Amino acid sequence: MTLQLEKATTEQLRDWETSLSQEYQAYKASGLNLDLTRGKPSAEQLSLSDSINQILGDDLSNESNTDLRNYGGLDGIPECKRLFAEVLDVNPDETLIGGNSSLTLMYMAAQFSLHQGFGELADSWSSEGGTVKFLAPVPGYDRHFSVCEHLGIELVTVDLNDNGPDMDAVEQLIKNDSSIKGIWCVPRFSNPTGTVYSDEVVDRIAQLGKIASSNFRVFWDNAYAVHSLNEDAPKLASLMDSCRKHGTEDSVYLFGSTSKITYAGAGVSFAGMSKANLKAFTHHLGMSQIGPDKINQLRHVRLLKDADGIAEHMRQHAAVLKPRFDIVLKHLREGLGDTGMASWTEPQGGYFVSFDTLPGLAKDVVKLAAEAGVKLTPAGATFPYGKDPANSNIRIAPSVPSLDEIDRAMAVFVTCVKLASVRQRIG
Amino acid sequence: MTLQLEKATTEQLRDWETSLSQEYQAYKASGLNLDLTRGKPSAEQLSLSDSINQILGDDLSNESNTDLRNYGGLDGIPECKRLFAEVLDVNPDETLIGGNSSLTLMYMAAQFSLHQGFGELADSWSSEGGTVKFLAPVPGYDRHFSVCEHLGIELVTVDLNDNGPDMDAVEQLIKNDSSIKGIWCVPRFSNPTGTVYSDEVVDRIAQLGKIASSNFRVFWDNAYAVHSLNEDAPKLASLMDSCRKHGTEDSVYLFGSTSKITYAGAGVSFAGMSKANLKAFTHHLGMSQIGPDKINQLRHVRLLKDADGIAEHMRQHAAVLKPRFDIVLKHLREGLGDTGMASWTEPQGGYFVSFDTLPGLAKDVVKLAAEAGVKLTPAGATFPYGKDPANSNIRIAPSVPSLDEIDRAMAVFVTCVKLASVRQRIG
Repeated sequence: MTLQLEKATTEQLRDWETSLSQEYQAYKASGLNLDLTRGKPSAEQLSLSDSINQILGDDLSNESNTDLRNYGGLDGIPECKRLFAEVLDVNPDETLIGGNSSLTLMYMAAQFSLHQGFGELADSWSSEGGTVKFLAPVPGYDRHFSVCEHLGIELVTVDLNDNGPDMDAVEQLIKNDSSIKGIWCVPRFSNPTGTVYSDEVVDRIAQLGKIASSNFRVFWDNAYAVHSLNEDAPKLASLMDSCRKHGTEDSVYLFGSTSKITYAGAGVSFAGMSKANLKAFTHHLGMSQIGPDKINQLRHVRLLKDADGIAEHMRQHAAVLKPRFDIVLKHLREGLGDTGMASWTEPQGGYFVSFDTLPGLAKDVVKLAAEAGVKLTPAGATFPYGKDPANSNIRIAPSVPSLDEIDRAMAVFVTCVKLASVRQRIG
Repeated sequence: MTLQLEKATTEQLRDWETSLSQEYQAYKASGLNLDLTRGKPSAEQLSLSDSINQILGDDLSNESNTDLRNYGGLDGIPECKRLFAEVLDVNPDETLIGGNSSLTLMYMAAQFSLHQGFGELADSWSSEGGTVKFLAPVPGYDRHFSVCEHLGIELVTVDLNDNGPDMDAVEQLIKNDSSIKGIWCVPRFSNPTGTVYSDEVVDRIAQLGKIASSNFRVFWDNAYAVHSLNEDAPKLASLMDSCRKHGTEDSVYLFGSTSKITYAGAGVSFAGMSKANLKAFTHHLGMSQIGPDKINQLRHVRLLKDADGIAEHMRQHAAVLKPRFDIVLKHLREGLGDTGMASWTEPQGGYFVSFDTLPGLAKDVVKLAAEAGVKLTPAGATFPYGKDPANSNIRIAPSVPSLDEIDRAMAVFVTCVKLASVRQRIG
């Protein structure tokens, strides 16, 4: 029997509260220890790349015949640039390969932009004095927000709609406030909603460079560029192609990594940007290092080979991930569908399901679940400064637990949502 | 016949100028293409570590039984911390393992200190307003200077004496100017002089924390900690032990890497600092990354094993490097000894010989050599802003060329020094 919150009488609500409380207490007594917090690959996924550790053998031969063991090569080896240029949909000469963390590339890009500027293109953000602001489509990725918080950049939220950020709001804010110097975007399978930006939104983002100041940059974190759960998942338009059309190539920084393709801790990161941006960026980067690990770049080229190799590799990831998402969604549909208690996204890629309780209940649900042994990402984590104004968003991350663990955890989760919702309704 | 500049008559000088010019022209005509600029390991040295590429096999087992393939572990794996704590002469719980570049750790340390501060220990340098200054013992390492230049930190030079920096000057400057927030040190086999700081100097540096402000930090780049050319090379006292004695543990950051132990481009870096500093540093570092490449850390532990393993490995490096230094010094002694034209260091470790022409001649010598096909590090590179006030210091880096190439290059170099000196004397 579906529990429809809006139509229930007070008596029905009280009955439900009683039975849900019993259900909840039973879970609590069963001593669960489950975790739906971690946006990282499972051991099974990591094992898909295990041949990478022996893949070089004695053969370090490479396209440029350079000694990859030695210093040098700030922008990466050519074959690796070509491989990941395709992932970012930019040209190889617009590509830079970094170390094992795209977050580091983003952090450095923000820090150089803030303090050191853009070479011949534009002055640093801090040179203008006063507050520097970034737009943050919400819900979003806490690590993006913490980069800004750490650098003293203020975050201004805009809504993330089903087709991407609310572009009317984005354009209006940029037009009215020249202290807005950037926007965070996870354009395909957004963290946590799974949103894929529509072609129209991508094109409007490419045009921001026409209305923003010359030192405005789109931070395009294409972390899940090739991470679809099924073959017919929506494609993403090429941001750089749109920029070329509009003459705004200098207004965007694109990022990605193999953290969720090969090894989360020992992959390679990459960035895409105009040649003018690349020149300024590598100059700054060269002050902080002699060059990235080129041996690990070669390992990645040998393992993944080309775009087809990446696609085939990602199909194996999807085969591991898809059943996990299916269980999450089955519980949500069967337990909460038509109850009027919640809404959620049904992503076709990425690592998360974004879940919304009724306003004001996210913290309660996370607390109830924790007390019953199911760990969830803290409520508010998907908003800047950890503050979800509606207190309703919860990020569900099903990649790490086993199918059985997800099954048990989601049963608890659904009960917690129902219990919190009914209790709120009773008042 | 030794050409003694001071004692030569004008006629002798003219004769020498004529014959040296002929010698120089002969070199110039022979179409040499030699390079003494690069402070990096040779292919022969890199090959000493080639087993590292296959050393893991299928076995990623490690002390903590963590999955090294995944995210996490900002400070490195325990066995790697223990291994390199010995190199820095600190405790394992005072050690952090980074990515492939200690320059990055130093850059980040300077950038966090400048903008974000030291957690509960002290406020950031920039919070005090005004200029931030660093002491730079000279001649020194251009990459240190460029970190400061990039971050807008002013460099104040002090002399590097035979036993380390001129500590009277260092102490006086720090006492009189609270805007001095750091000092660059390469304490064993300094770049470029090969100086090993004496025990007394190490102890005085450990005491700087008593006279400097709470946010002053010694940047102790122990890049050549284990890089001696012979077994009886001078040892370095433990800075952290001295700090413990004086209660100044928070005033020092120690750095090192395997760039010149294993692979220059694919090694691991490490830092040593008090637990309080480490807490603040890892907090800041965690804003820019999820963690370093732990798989590469395990490779290094498997290859080098322990302090004895490192020592044995470095003996193999010394066997490759020592003959190169010997040729350089042979040419200098035989060609320029007792001529009154030059002085140079005779390092017992590291990567460089530091050479001083008569005042005003370094640029001329570098230019003459370049025109004869022998590339040298630009004169001035060992001083902040590329300006050697005496225009006399030249860094000779013999690690990369073959023995024969060094032999030929040094013959040219000696001729260039003689020619420039004689011409200057003639006026």
